[in-house]
Amino acid sequence: MKLHDIPTPALVVDARAMERNIQRMAAFFSERRCKLRPHFKAHKTPAIAHRQLAAGWCTGITCATVSEAEVIAAEGVSGDILIANEVLGAGKAGRVARLAARVDIKVAADSATAVAELAEAARAVAVQIGVLVDVNVGLPRCGIGPGQPALELARQVASAEGLRLRGLMGYEGHAVAVADRSAREAAARYAMEQLLSTAQMVREAGLPCDIVSAGGTGTYDITGQMEGITEIQAGSYVLMDTAYAKLDIPFELAFSILGTVLSRPSPTICVTDSGHKACTEDHGNPSVKEIEGASVLLLSDEHATIILPPESKIAPGDRIELWPSHIDPTINLHDALFVLDGDEVADVWPIAARGYPEQRALLP
Amino acid sequence: MKLHDIPTPALVVDARAMERNIQRMAAFFSERRCKLRPHFKAHKTPAIAHRQLAAGWCTGITCATVSEAEVIAAEGVSGDILIANEVLGAGKAGRVARLAARVDIKVAADSATAVAELAEAARAVAVQIGVLVDVNVGLPRCGIGPGQPALELARQVASAEGLRLRGLMGYEGHAVAVADRSAREAAARYAMEQLLSTAQMVREAGLPCDIVSAGGTGTYDITGQMEGITEIQAGSYVLMDTAYAKLDIPFELAFSILGTVLSRPSPTICVTDSGHKACTEDHGNPSVKEIEGASVLLLSDEHATIILPPESKIAPGDRIELWPSHIDPTINLHDALFVLDGDEVADVWPIAARGYPEQRALLP
Repeated sequence: MKLHDIPTPALVVDARAMERNIQRMAAFFSERRCKLRPHFKAHKTPAIAHRQLAAGWCTGITCATVSEAEVIAAEGVSGDILIANEVLGAGKAGRVARLAARVDIKVAADSATAVAELAEAARAVAVQIGVLVDVNVGLPRCGIGPGQPALELARQVASAEGLRLRGLMGYEGHAVAVADRSAREAAARYAMEQLLSTAQMVREAGLPCDIVSAGGTGTYDITGQMEGITEIQAGSYVLMDTAYAKLDIPFELAFSILGTVLSRPSPTICVTDSGHKACTEDHGNPSVKEIEGASVLLLSDEHATIILPPESKIAPGDRIELWPSHIDPTINLHDALFVLDGDEVADVWPIAARGYPEQRALLP
Repeated sequence: MKLHDIPTPALVVDARAMERNIQRMAAFFSERRCKLRPHFKAHKTPAIAHRQLAAGWCTGITCATVSEAEVIAAEGVSGDILIANEVLGAGKAGRVARLAARVDIKVAADSATAVAELAEAARAVAVQIGVLVDVNVGLPRCGIGPGQPALELARQVASAEGLRLRGLMGYEGHAVAVADRSAREAAARYAMEQLLSTAQMVREAGLPCDIVSAGGTGTYDITGQMEGITEIQAGSYVLMDTAYAKLDIPFELAFSILGTVLSRPSPTICVTDSGHKACTEDHGNPSVKEIEGASVLLLSDEHATIILPPESKIAPGDRIELWPSHIDPTINLHDALFVLDGDEVADVWPIAARGYPEQRALLP
């Protein structure tokens, strides 16, 4: 299969750029006590996760949902899985317990309710589920307060039959995309000081805390250098996006949305078939690859309306690639990654954990 | 299966509200010469399309992609299909030609290139493909200029062996969401005058023009009352969204995103598992259903951070439903619609044309 045979819109991956990103990140962690736990949620693609882990210096893999953990286990990606997210509701703790019989699984928790549900599910099938207390370090999202509240929850985990306290996590998501490095460093360091002081309290209380998990692509080289942080949950670095490409980090844009020009309604406009069903705009419009002076005016469901220099020779049927602004939700729109080696399609990788695999299992 | 058994996040449909929407739209067209051609792209769900057509007063069905047309044909939804979009690139015209052997298929075209590709594909398998010339009526997207340019393209279609000119289409997408009715009417009428005067030119040139297709959920009762418009391509009306609910149209919000509360990090915040991988924000944040004073602060990949009144008793494990702001891309994130009759799950419908079915066919 050749590049021009791919039906559009489609995700295409530059395999060599991706491999350079993987090697650059591995090289960083090869020199440090802190290790990488690559985040599967960014791409949901077992073939990519295998390559990230094969590069070494990883503790295991991170994911965001029980479905992702199930795919990781089924595909033999890693036997050491962290669900870096709260697990609650409709049979989910039971599914984690069934996974715990096969792999070393750890789950984030920030409430007594979540701890109780996990413990009950673990006891029901006589397994132990690892738990990291999720500490809020500044992002307005999940996590229990640092210090005493987190210590109290750690005590509950440690005393719950069926659970094993493994440590803490705290995601400095409010810091990862700050453009200015010194401001990013300040925000990340302040957040991590909350996490590290809480870890010290947990240890001083005689409780186990061998894992302190944090970080992302924007802070891996800040948080990953702080004494006491044991692993970094970066995901986007592997294929990148235009939002992260604005930061001073050494990773390349390695995937794009391939589209076909459907229309050239005026000298300064063309329209492709890559709308926001193919490329999300939650981090802003995508950028146009390799056409100087071109930019996306707007995305609609099935179309990108692109402003062109009037002298452009772009015509219906031509291909245009867009660089997405946000990797995770964009990849989540697709079922396949077309892996390019020049103009050859070297592989087609299933995005196996796309969407909600548990919903597909319930279809008649 | 009960409501509380549904793994979250998930799309849930109020079957009775949906049926009321379908009947209200059918009642409008029962009294007019203009008919409805419901747009499949809004929901991509054969079970819904069957119900829309069963209510009567439809010419057939509208879709946006070749994949959708293939699903419609395979599921026996309708034998009269309009792809209201340009078809170009990577084998697509050939796929339309294969469909043309089984169903009455019509495709929008706005360029000589598209016309030539369709004609060549039709001749290769000895079928006729119906074509509507796509006229730009103001939306900055596809469509050839009204008047002489459109007439010239209509002549090319009419003289191309393998193609059959059926008429025109023009989508007044810039008008459909205008909040003020008189401004919306003015914009829609001005757009449709361009389309209708072009139709007259085509007929005066002795060319066939039995279909003049236009409209959407926001303009169905404006455009659908204009003499000479033969069909309306409305889709969103069937399940609605909060953007369309702001207009003075008689349709109910009939679907929502069911989420589970993962965290209650502070008295005025809770976090659910329905982030923008479950609910797009391209038309703004979703709204919180049935919790007075609650609103979405932000969506991230896997989470909705929701502001609550401080007295709220919402706790981890509770369920919260969100009303999406944009139906089409939100449904496109999911594989299943859970159909509710009160607290019972009456059915689980496959969103069969979600994403890019042609990509799934290429997976190893």
